[in-house]
Amino acid sequence: MLTLYFAPGTIALASIITLCETGLEFEARRIDFKKNEQRTPDYLKLNPKGRVPALITDAGVVTETPAILSYLAEIAPQAGLAPVGNAFAAAQLQSFNAWLCSTVHICHAMGRRAIRWTPDEAAHASLKAHVPVTMAACMAQVEADYLQGPWVFGEDYTTADPYLFTICTWLEGDGVDIAAYPKLSQHHQSMLGRTAVQRALAIERGEG
Amino acid sequence: MLTLYFAPGTIALASIITLCETGLEFEARRIDFKKNEQRTPDYLKLNPKGRVPALITDAGVVTETPAILSYLAEIAPQAGLAPVGNAFAAAQLQSFNAWLCSTVHICHAMGRRAIRWTPDEAAHASLKAHVPVTMAACMAQVEADYLQGPWVFGEDYTTADPYLFTICTWLEGDGVDIAAYPKLSQHHQSMLGRTAVQRALAIERGEG
Repeated sequence: MLTLYFAPGTIALASIITLCETGLEFEARRIDFKKNEQRTPDYLKLNPKGRVPALITDAGVVTETPAILSYLAEIAPQAGLAPVGNAFAAAQLQSFNAWLCSTVHICHAMGRRAIRWTPDEAAHASLKAHVPVTMAACMAQVEADYLQGPWVFGEDYTTADPYLFTICTWLEGDGVDIAAYPKLSQHHQSMLGRTAVQRALAIERGEG
Repeated sequence: MLTLYFAPGTIALASIITLCETGLEFEARRIDFKKNEQRTPDYLKLNPKGRVPALITDAGVVTETPAILSYLAEIAPQAGLAPVGNAFAAAQLQSFNAWLCSTVHICHAMGRRAIRWTPDEAAHASLKAHVPVTMAACMAQVEADYLQGPWVFGEDYTTADPYLFTICTWLEGDGVDIAAYPKLSQHHQSMLGRTAVQRALAIERGEG
């Protein structure tokens, strides 16, 4: 049995979508950030980083989105969510996901989690004001260099797709109009057409 | 043949060490950040992100440290740098490396690359001033929750070790005394005792 701890509006949606894509049975447990539930002693025992997502497996806890997505792809090979037997293709997928996690997600986080990096409120305001610029640059790079279409890696739907999709659900709040990126807009619409995505969005809303 | 583009003092050292551990033949090509060589048209053709490291393989280019390290472990299985046939253990390694890339490396980057996130120089100063606090918190977490010893994953030396080691070479410049973390200090000394690490440091200095 798998259990995913998530909070709405976070990157945990990528893991929920991927769980839905695998067809594996799982439970999604909501963590309420407003009640600071990610800092309770019980949750910190599961994930000392006090973040979501965290995937509880029979073997132990997996944290960090790129690792959760790879793990799910590996334990559910029938879903075909990652290349098998091709080290270079696997590295390309891991590279894209690592870039989302270390560059794109960070640009977004500057708008709402800058307290992680400085207590200076004036700096928070400067960082927040610049989010539309950095996120637009990231999306321009996705459009120009990475998104092959219809999926990130062409005809092969992979874990890169729910990861990118989840970040794109933040764009409006980040002051970026996805319509400026035709391939990305099409990707977003294609994702919304997937059963797994609709189910995951319902779970995120507490209707799953 | 493999070629790694690197710059001294950057996270590329983790990839150089890992290349040395594999025993594979490779060429290391230095990029001079002072001459902005990472932004030349030729380099941007290889890596549109204009960053190091970038690993050139016969199949194409691999970027992002977690992906390069996984790729090297996979194409050189004889080096035993990553778990094989154990999805959970593989996910733990990937989780640790993803955390280094998306959290620890970012805390360090606030001290010298904050221009990525805002043009406001006052904010840069605030971010830089807070680096000793966030990097110390990261190292305390490594010490308490992750570093099993002697290597990150106990008796098994993996790609997590050169990745952590490389970040630890930045600690003095980040205002953090590694001596405050006994397990981490021992890890650093053990890494310095490895032939591959000494060879990689020589390559980084241009003596390789």
